[in-house]
Amino acid sequence: MRRMTARPANAHQARLLRLLRDGGPRSRAELGDRVDLSRSKLAVEVDRLLETGLVVADGLAASRGGRRSHNIRLAPGLRFLGVDIGATSVDVAVTNPELEILGHLNQPMDVREGPVAVFDQVLAMVAKLRDSGVADGFDGAGIGVPGPVRFPEGTPVAPPIMPGWDGFPVREALSQELGCPVMVDNDVNLMATGEMQAGVARSVRDFFCVKIGTGIGCGVVVGGEVHRGTTGSAGDIGHIQVEPDGRQCACGNRGCLEAYFGGAALARDAEEAAREGRSPELARLLAEKGRLDAADIATAASAGDGTSLDLIRDGGARVGQVIASLVSFFNPGLVVIGGGVTGLGHTLLASIRTQVYRQSLPLATGNLPIVLGELGQVAGVTGAARLTSDHLFSPA
Amino acid sequence: MRRMTARPANAHQARLLRLLRDGGPRSRAELGDRVDLSRSKLAVEVDRLLETGLVVADGLAASRGGRRSHNIRLAPGLRFLGVDIGATSVDVAVTNPELEILGHLNQPMDVREGPVAVFDQVLAMVAKLRDSGVADGFDGAGIGVPGPVRFPEGTPVAPPIMPGWDGFPVREALSQELGCPVMVDNDVNLMATGEMQAGVARSVRDFFCVKIGTGIGCGVVVGGEVHRGTTGSAGDIGHIQVEPDGRQCACGNRGCLEAYFGGAALARDAEEAAREGRSPELARLLAEKGRLDAADIATAASAGDGTSLDLIRDGGARVGQVIASLVSFFNPGLVVIGGGVTGLGHTLLASIRTQVYRQSLPLATGNLPIVLGELGQVAGVTGAARLTSDHLFSPA
Repeated sequence: MRRMTARPANAHQARLLRLLRDGGPRSRAELGDRVDLSRSKLAVEVDRLLETGLVVADGLAASRGGRRSHNIRLAPGLRFLGVDIGATSVDVAVTNPELEILGHLNQPMDVREGPVAVFDQVLAMVAKLRDSGVADGFDGAGIGVPGPVRFPEGTPVAPPIMPGWDGFPVREALSQELGCPVMVDNDVNLMATGEMQAGVARSVRDFFCVKIGTGIGCGVVVGGEVHRGTTGSAGDIGHIQVEPDGRQCACGNRGCLEAYFGGAALARDAEEAAREGRSPELARLLAEKGRLDAADIATAASAGDGTSLDLIRDGGARVGQVIASLVSFFNPGLVVIGGGVTGLGHTLLASIRTQVYRQSLPLATGNLPIVLGELGQVAGVTGAARLTSDHLFSPA
Repeated sequence: MRRMTARPANAHQARLLRLLRDGGPRSRAELGDRVDLSRSKLAVEVDRLLETGLVVADGLAASRGGRRSHNIRLAPGLRFLGVDIGATSVDVAVTNPELEILGHLNQPMDVREGPVAVFDQVLAMVAKLRDSGVADGFDGAGIGVPGPVRFPEGTPVAPPIMPGWDGFPVREALSQELGCPVMVDNDVNLMATGEMQAGVARSVRDFFCVKIGTGIGCGVVVGGEVHRGTTGSAGDIGHIQVEPDGRQCACGNRGCLEAYFGGAALARDAEEAAREGRSPELARLLAEKGRLDAADIATAASAGDGTSLDLIRDGGARVGQVIASLVSFFNPGLVVIGGGVTGLGHTLLASIRTQVYRQSLPLATGNLPIVLGELGQVAGVTGAARLTSDHLFSPA
């Protein structure tokens, strides 16, 4: 069933809705402090928003002298859906209007199975969340896919790790199924958006967020807005060349960053080390499980396995080498590291930091924090909910 | 003598002034088509601008039915000064309010002589331009320096090739001497701004501009605005590492791009080739002049000198390698190559293009033009004039 959620009529109303989303309930007076509107004009806009049902009056506000007024808050029944499709797993979450997560599911999934199979699984997860009672419908949904997206159309484009997805009308298809507007973006852009909304990048205007999962990507934020680039491929740093005539990469080129690091490269290198007898610990894990992933290497490293530590350090140095170049170019206020491989923890972070602080000029790195993301597995779904709420809270 | 140039009272007036700057004289009706104002409100703002003297009525506009109205244009007496300080030369130009250049001087200069000596020379050049009759005073001046700038304060900061300039109050000092507001920026940001104002990047919102002079820098434009970065060092790509444990660089690190290419590296490599007997042509030029520069290598290359052609190709490949990474990260709509070394011409451009198109993914390079700047020696001064006019044409 399609919900007919109202949209704000003008930029003032849109700003008020976003203030309430990011700061929670406020009195009219507090809202007035934050927007450049006369008292009477503010009253008009708030009254119009009350009529749309997007906001409600809720409890008495603290007194500032004179008659006490009601707090204004977003309609508590608003629900946003966030979907974060990775290469090997999918996260689905439902948020309230303040983008707090009310329910969250994570399941393994193979993006290569194609959009039809993946969306069947996503819709089953959505149904499960609905059945749990956190939502009976959605006012908007945001969805992230692990590849470049033609943002205005909401379709993946030439996604290297997603055969079968090129040009698939993700927005149209999901919008029909879910009965609400759908926004589609690259998974890394959504991770950056999530960390900006509720994580480590909350007050930062210029930063980038490097996601090290199966592959490696980067979300770029300029002036508080995601920079998607001319064809939606900004941040596609996994195929930056780090070694001339280096290892063959799946993209067809040689020496790409992803050929050296990321979940896929790490698993391959660890299995090779296990088979070649360079690490009894990895050999034991491989025999036990039949394959290795980043978590196994983290386990082995914690147990003091030298080969695993070397793999993490070398990989960190490779990523650090690329980040150092991007820091020189972009001069960010913060670099966030996220994604599955961040389970490698402090060894990885130390290796990245060493490389960046050594290679970039002091002016760019003097006050540059390089930190792990705060939101972990819910960064993407939080960003997805924010994206769709940004859309809903814009003039129609 | 200080001119007391008026400033617009609000954002509407500022927008009108910029429209007139970039599009030339227009009728009130044409202005009304471009701004979101009611007819009566537009009339009020235009009348107020007429009162300030920033705009004047000038000639009858083309009829659109009804009574013919006067064209509105910027006051023709407005004058902007642009100063572009390079490592080894300085450009000074005077523009009219539409930023067309009325007079331009270029002189050799050594930035290492420090701000006092350099500004003596700049002020002498300004006096010469004044004496030629193109201006009797200035409404604003913009100045570019070859290093990072703390933009809000208008001071150079930790400039590697400019000893003696660190923290020098360029804005204050020049403002006093010139009797007008002064804006200070990095030279490469001004080149990018100039190409955006009147050159090859006119209609482009996201691009970067690589200046290959004595050193190598980059101006980054996002959504039509220069991206200066958190500490003003965005675009400082000359010290990106292109070779691990490579050549010693003047910055203290090893393997930086500038250690391999740019005017300084090229001159050193060419002189070495001449002395080692690898190029009779370069040896002849060196014997004749005592030293070599990029122009000599261009001359030798045109004469078919293989060593010179190799130097240009190798340098282009190094720059191309860095640009390829930045294209993957930033996904620009255009890459502009400028600076003195662009005299190396098509061989250089071909080498850069080959590297970028080979290394970056097709999605980012499919429609990516990589072109030489159009404005040559006046790109920086045009950008400087634009910067100061942007300031003047902002609400006070």
